[in-house]
Amino acid sequence: MERPARTESPTIGELGESRTLARILPRLASGDAALLGAGDDAAVVAAADGRYVVTTDLLVHGPDFRLAWSTPFELGWKAAATNLTDVAAMGARPTALVVAIAAPPTTPAAVLEGIADGLHEGLAALAPGAGVVGGDLSASTVLTIAVTAFGDLEGRAPVLRSGARVGDVLAHAGARGDAARGLALLFAEGTDAAGEPDPERAAEVRARHPELVAAQLAPHPPVAAGVAAARAGATSMLDVSDGLARDARRIAEASGVGLDFDGEALGADLRVAFAGAEDHGLLATFPPGVEPPAPFEVVGRIVPAPGEVLIDGRGIDAEGWDPYSGWDGRSG
Amino acid sequence: MERPARTESPTIGELGESRTLARILPRLASGDAALLGAGDDAAVVAAADGRYVVTTDLLVHGPDFRLAWSTPFELGWKAAATNLTDVAAMGARPTALVVAIAAPPTTPAAVLEGIADGLHEGLAALAPGAGVVGGDLSASTVLTIAVTAFGDLEGRAPVLRSGARVGDVLAHAGARGDAARGLALLFAEGTDAAGEPDPERAAEVRARHPELVAAQLAPHPPVAAGVAAARAGATSMLDVSDGLARDARRIAEASGVGLDFDGEALGADLRVAFAGAEDHGLLATFPPGVEPPAPFEVVGRIVPAPGEVLIDGRGIDAEGWDPYSGWDGRSG
Repeated sequence: MERPARTESPTIGELGESRTLARILPRLASGDAALLGAGDDAAVVAAADGRYVVTTDLLVHGPDFRLAWSTPFELGWKAAATNLTDVAAMGARPTALVVAIAAPPTTPAAVLEGIADGLHEGLAALAPGAGVVGGDLSASTVLTIAVTAFGDLEGRAPVLRSGARVGDVLAHAGARGDAARGLALLFAEGTDAAGEPDPERAAEVRARHPELVAAQLAPHPPVAAGVAAARAGATSMLDVSDGLARDARRIAEASGVGLDFDGEALGADLRVAFAGAEDHGLLATFPPGVEPPAPFEVVGRIVPAPGEVLIDGRGIDAEGWDPYSGWDGRSG
Repeated sequence: MERPARTESPTIGELGESRTLARILPRLASGDAALLGAGDDAAVVAAADGRYVVTTDLLVHGPDFRLAWSTPFELGWKAAATNLTDVAAMGARPTALVVAIAAPPTTPAAVLEGIADGLHEGLAALAPGAGVVGGDLSASTVLTIAVTAFGDLEGRAPVLRSGARVGDVLAHAGARGDAARGLALLFAEGTDAAGEPDPERAAEVRARHPELVAAQLAPHPPVAAGVAAARAGATSMLDVSDGLARDARRIAEASGVGLDFDGEALGADLRVAFAGAEDHGLLATFPPGVEPPAPFEVVGRIVPAPGEVLIDGRGIDAEGWDPYSGWDGRSG
């Protein structure tokens, strides 16, 4: 599935914008919703139900990814996956992306080709029918990927963070802490003596722990479960990107309820999943008596404790990742 | 209109993401098309005619702007203006933006507040009713602004680059070379002895040439003229962002026609407008006998010379700005 980057590749500075685009665009598909794809001032996308869901995200080399650890293919895959999950968390079916990339002129064209391949394969695997309808190329000293993703609510109301009610069932779909475990391994064993990300050492970590490293670098979030949850009547839902504790508190605060997790249901994953970011699972609530659709699993219940996150009835201090105060400035 | 940045401002690293957002979001409006604005995993926007126009753009400190020259307010204004013009160039009415910003943790919050004010005022002036429906904050060593803009075709077909026909009238709306003149002045006189952008010298340039500097740093493109052109039956249209020569060639190639400019109609501006980037005017073609709506002015005609740009019947070599090979890596 993954195409290795060629070692002999012209740089994007040597090629210029037009010839770089000519290498990237054929690797992408515009998808079923594209009425007009890339090539004009703007794209035109179908919005069958008269609305569209939109979310945007910036991925920056250093705080968000490191080329010493991620392949370009993985970067593209993750950029797609994380944005598709935000669309899914509204109960929408992802339809399209636009992608803007800023890169140093010295970047080999093969890096952008790899990102394009990862975007394409990530869309095909996680949101069949969705495509890349447009984009932009810019220059920067820091490789930066901006993705904006769109979705179709297919006539349904969006599933918000604010709809959880006391008595609802709390359910979770997707990974629980694997992305954080993978990142911890990379920081602990994929760095050189100075603590900087190191490709050779990262490859060794990857060989020893392929699933945990993949969960961090090329996650497979349960995108299709978003629509399934909405159809089943989910009362609230969000993408778990900042750790289960912090994201659970967001539903608790928006809905004015308490989220009481069942420690036994979460089992040994509980501590890691609560603190660890980037799992990109879905946390949702369902009315009493509704069976959460697979792959959702019941992990607790909604209780009358406004804004609180609890485990087995005891409140916890919900903390998480902050993109500014949580980053030390290393650019990997 | 412009609020000066305060000199005493906490950094966004000190504030963290939540408190930074709490300072920015109240400065923005979500606009008339927002069914659900910022605050959930994604926004929901109305698409009354079952389609939406979408364009995306990355603005990077160094190649695209310099804080030594631009105020934060001007950055926000320009980020809005350039994206709104791409929407207008499809014949669409701009409805919404999403904005993702990556900034060093040491950035004063006042910088992001200024950008938000510029976005807000730019939208209010150029596309009343449009708003910011969502966004993202990230960390980076380089200040980077990613804007994705949306528009409503109101039932009309999009105006493409490929629709010009021999015999059509060629018309232009907006500035002709002023942005390039302003940038040339800033490079010539707004830099220090080492050629680096210098705030004090730039202020002197601004005092001497307020209109040319404003055309570069806070342009007023003819956004409303895009819908007017579409209603009048424009056969092709684009945003003139890379110089009139290079952008004219895009229509010529996409339509398989020649664009023959009337040298007298362009007058003294011709040379600068042809080579100079970032004017963000609109270049459009109209069927014979159709009067281009104001502020469009007739500047030539469409002739049977596929892919060529001509002045008074003589072909020219259409060149322009390239974001990779045209940038020397200075980060200003």
